[in-house]
This record gives sequence, C-alpha cells and structure tokens, in this order.
Amino acid sequence: MASTNLMSLSDIEKKKFLESFDSFISDCDGVLWHGRKPVSGAQDVLKNLVSMGKRRFYFTNNSTLTRKQFIEKFNTLGFDAEEDEILSTAWLTAKYLKNINFSKKVYVIGGTAVKEELDAFGIENIGVGPDNYMPKNSSSFSLGNSNIELVPDVGAVVIGYDFFFSYPKLMKACSYLNNPECLFIATNKDEKFPAADGVIVPGAGAFVAALETCSERNAVVMGKPSPFAIDNVLIPSGLDSKRCLMIGDRCNTDIQFGNQRGMTTLLVETGVHKYSDLEKFKSSGMNHLIPSYYTSSVADLLEIMNL
Amino acid sequence: MASTNLMSLSDIEKKKFLESFDSFISDCDGVLWHGRKPVSGAQDVLKNLVSMGKRRFYFTNNSTLTRKQFIEKFNTLGFDAEEDEILSTAWLTAKYLKNINFSKKVYVIGGTAVKEELDAFGIENIGVGPDNYMPKNSSSFSLGNSNIELVPDVGAVVIGYDFFFSYPKLMKACSYLNNPECLFIATNKDEKFPAADGVIVPGAGAFVAALETCSERNAVVMGKPSPFAIDNVLIPSGLDSKRCLMIGDRCNTDIQFGNQRGMTTLLVETGVHKYSDLEKFKSSGMNHLIPSYYTSSVADLLEIMNL
Repeated sequence: MASTNLMSLSDIEKKKFLESFDSFISDCDGVLWHGRKPVSGAQDVLKNLVSMGKRRFYFTNNSTLTRKQFIEKFNTLGFDAEEDEILSTAWLTAKYLKNINFSKKVYVIGGTAVKEELDAFGIENIGVGPDNYMPKNSSSFSLGNSNIELVPDVGAVVIGYDFFFSYPKLMKACSYLNNPECLFIATNKDEKFPAADGVIVPGAGAFVAALETCSERNAVVMGKPSPFAIDNVLIPSGLDSKRCLMIGDRCNTDIQFGNQRGMTTLLVETGVHKYSDLEKFKSSGMNHLIPSYYTSSVADLLEIMNL
Repeated sequence: MASTNLMSLSDIEKKKFLESFDSFISDCDGVLWHGRKPVSGAQDVLKNLVSMGKRRFYFTNNSTLTRKQFIEKFNTLGFDAEEDEILSTAWLTAKYLKNINFSKKVYVIGGTAVKEELDAFGIENIGVGPDNYMPKNSSSFSLGNSNIELVPDVGAVVIGYDFFFSYPKLMKACSYLNNPECLFIATNKDEKFPAADGVIVPGAGAFVAALETCSERNAVVMGKPSPFAIDNVLIPSGLDSKRCLMIGDRCNTDIQFGNQRGMTTLLVETGVHKYSDLEKFKSSGMNHLIPSYYTSSVADLLEIMNL
C-alpha cells in the first residue's frame, strides 16, 4: 500500500481527483486550525466545496462542545458550517441512543455538552457535574460498606472527557455495567493533550481504559477511528463512501477512520503526523494507517480548485 | 501441560510432595479466609510449616494495609505471622525504591498504607489523601489553563488503590511521567472487587489502566502475577524457587505468578477458580494459568502432614 504525493499529480489528474468525490469529511484541529489560529487558506477550501455542489462534513472527536457551540467556534475562526455538517461525539452519542429508541436513563461520565445533546433528544440522563459522594476522608469510606446509591432504570453508561472524573463515578459506572444489558458507550478514546507548563491533560481514552478494565467490557466508540459514524450516520444519510474524501492530520484516528468502507484518505502535514511517519507505520505492518494521498496543507486543494 | 489432583497421589507420593519443598508461599483471601471467615484448618497448616522447618510467606496484592496492619489482621483471624513473612504490595513498593537508593520524591496515587511504608524507609512522598485541586464547578477549570502545580524533584509515580482517585491526580501523575526518567510503579493490577448491594468496587488495575493510557507508558508491577517479588525479594533472600510451592485460588494472579522461575503451583478451590476452569484455559492456549496440582482446600495439606 503506497501513499501518493497529491501535488505530484498532473493537472489533469488533479482535476480528476477532485471530481471523483461527492463528499468531503474534514477533521478540525490540526487540519483547519491550531488552537485558535486558522490554517491559512483553509476557510476558502471549505467554502468552495459548497459552491461546487459537494457535501461537506466536519468530524471532531472532541466531546466537550455541542454542535451549536461548534458552529460558534467555526464562525469565530472564519469558517461557515451548518449543524447537519458537524459530526461531534457528544451529538453522535445522543443521536445513536435516539436511533435505537433508547427509553431508559443514561449514566454519564462527561461534560455538560453530552448532557445538553441528550436533553435535546429528550433522553433522560444523570451524572454530569461533581459527584457528591466523593469521600472527604478515609473514615467516610470503607470497601465493604460502600453506600453508593445506584439509580434504578439506568440502561446505558456514556463516558467521555470529564474533569470531575472521580472514584465514585467509576464505581457507579462499573456497577451499572455489571448488568450485561446496560449499554456501554464511549464518546472517543483520545489518550492525552499537551497543555502549558509541562502539564499533560488526560483524554477521554484514559477514563475509558479505567472503566473497560474494572467492568471487563469493551465500549462502543463514537469517535474516530471507530467506523461507527460511517455506518450509522453517513451511509444512512445517503453518502457514497467510495466517492468520499477523508482529510486528517492523525493517521491513528482520521486516516484509519477514512480507510474503512472504501473511502479515500488525505493526510495533511499541518498537525500530528507527517509523510516521514508513514515509513514507520509501513515497516510495522500498520497499513490501515497509510493514507491514499498526502500533502502539506488542506489549502493545497485551493490550488487544484483554481486549475 | 496437565494438572494433577493432589489427593489422588499415593501416601508415599504425598509425603514426597511435601518433602520436595523448603518454602511455601500462600495467597490470603480465598485461600486462608473469605472476608473475615477463616478457611477451616488453614491456621494449623500454616502453623505446622514452621515446626517442620519450612519457610513461609504470605503474598497479598492488597495495597491498603501495611505489613504491621496485616499481622494484626492475621492474628485476629487466628493466623500467626512475622513481618518478614509478609509480601504486601505497599511494602514491596517501598522496599524496591529503597533497594535502588531512590532519593527523589514519590508522587503517590494510593492509600495511607503506601505512605506509611514509604515513610518507614525514609522515602519522601506526596499525594496521599484528597487532591485539593479537584474542581468545584466547570468555570473553575479550563483545558488550556490547567493551573496544576507540579512539584520539582518528583522521580517516581506510584499508583495503587485510592478512593480519592480523581482527575487532578491523574493529570499530575501523567505530567510527571512525561519525563522519561520518572519511574512508573503500580502496586497491583487487580481489576475489581464485588461489594454489597450490586456495587462493584474498581480495583487498582482500573486506575493503572487510566494512567498507562494517558502516559503511553507501562508500569512496573509489584503484585502478582508480575515476577517482581520473586526476582527482587525472594531469590535475593535465599529462596530456591525449584523447592518452593505457591498456593493460590486465582489462576491469573497466584498460579501465573508461581508458574514462573521453576516454582510448583497448587490451586485450592476455596476461592475464584475451580478445576473446571482449567479446561477453558487449556483450550485457549493459556498454559501459564494451569497449576501443577489442584485440591479442594489448603486444609488438605494437613492430612498429608499427618500421614
């Protein structure tokens, strides 16, 4: 499996490349912007897709914002977006539960965005915010007398990024999951994020690993690289995955996601992974991480659009 | 690899079996007692070992008690024990750091027993107890401005069972481990414990999984099945592993531990695993979980001792 330098194609090939897709899915951070700084030219690429009659999706693993909040963020950074174009993991979770006509309560380890998306679909949920059971000292807790109150009628546990993550939350979630009929959903499995001053911020993947370990179960994952969104949202909405381009900067989320169900993938070198990483993946036999194409920036598509 | 029913041996073979060991290592819960109820006859077996001139060790993965506290527990349940006979994971951690002349600070996610064992060896440590940084509400925390204070001179992170486990603790531990020279030690990796009223209590293994995921590192594990205690405590103390019997009730901790370095292993059916589980392990190719011998209770050894 080899990766092609997009800009090494002839002009005719470049035009054909663009014409071969009806739909484009783009990751956000590392492709369209870094933190609060847009990648130069990215806005025009995304805008042109609409005038060319292409469908456009933004897919982010970030579960801390609702689709409405993402639109505000997009607008602030100079991107336009409609709600239907946004695949975010808090929304995907709520959408999934709605699709299966879930009618019980959801126990959530996650942020307010998960709660708001569930609320918007009318799905009853508990757990968001600090857990009042957090013990204050050693004597307020003992193993055999845990005193944890379990709510009846919880039929799903959802876990995502939660800075109120604590031992009582883990104990409750694990106890609900002891019922094999209780659904187990993770928004995403991102391991960590760098922050300022040498601080490493644990990602949702750390919390999911804890819960998978003590429940001895595996979560259904909404975020990339899980093909969940392709099978449950994109293909049902009419997307032809063989005529879809997935654009991303991380091979083990975006590119792995896109390499499924016949999509074409494009690695842009404005984020985590570069062309030089591909040799490593190849020699480790990780062909599912190799993009169909690579290029320096999503803005290179602008040059092709202008041919 | 086949497992032999200990009590199916002839009397002569039984006596030879007992004579073939200088040292006996026993797991505690599930072998010697259940909760607070001793296994009938177990006390006499352990007592007789001493009068027969055999060395005796108790090995528990439980990190929530010091060796001194274990002796009190043993005495309460009718067992005698000396400090040198107890392998507990809080103590093993402190002993290990002492052995390598560790002279920096330890950041501990764990209970007071870990702190006390470290203190006893004069090893400076921080972290035990609730973390004051636990956010009170959403506005007191934001990803980019984490405000976590990292203490200089932390050279090791120790993680075990901690009912004050929280997001800030995970963030601190993960940030310390971003320095590749910082040691990463787990007391044990037990997944969970059943409690009353359908509550499942997450074990240290859940916390370790979270930290291994966000640090993208693997912990050195003190507890069973890691061979750490054999290589670093038992063999250095003169134990001949070829003349040692490991007795346990869990194949994936006790038996796997004992099957290393040439020990003989005995599964007792008073706890988690039974003879009927062995067929499953065999058919899954997990020969490292198969004990050399199995029998219904550790008390069967009393019958052999009285031959």
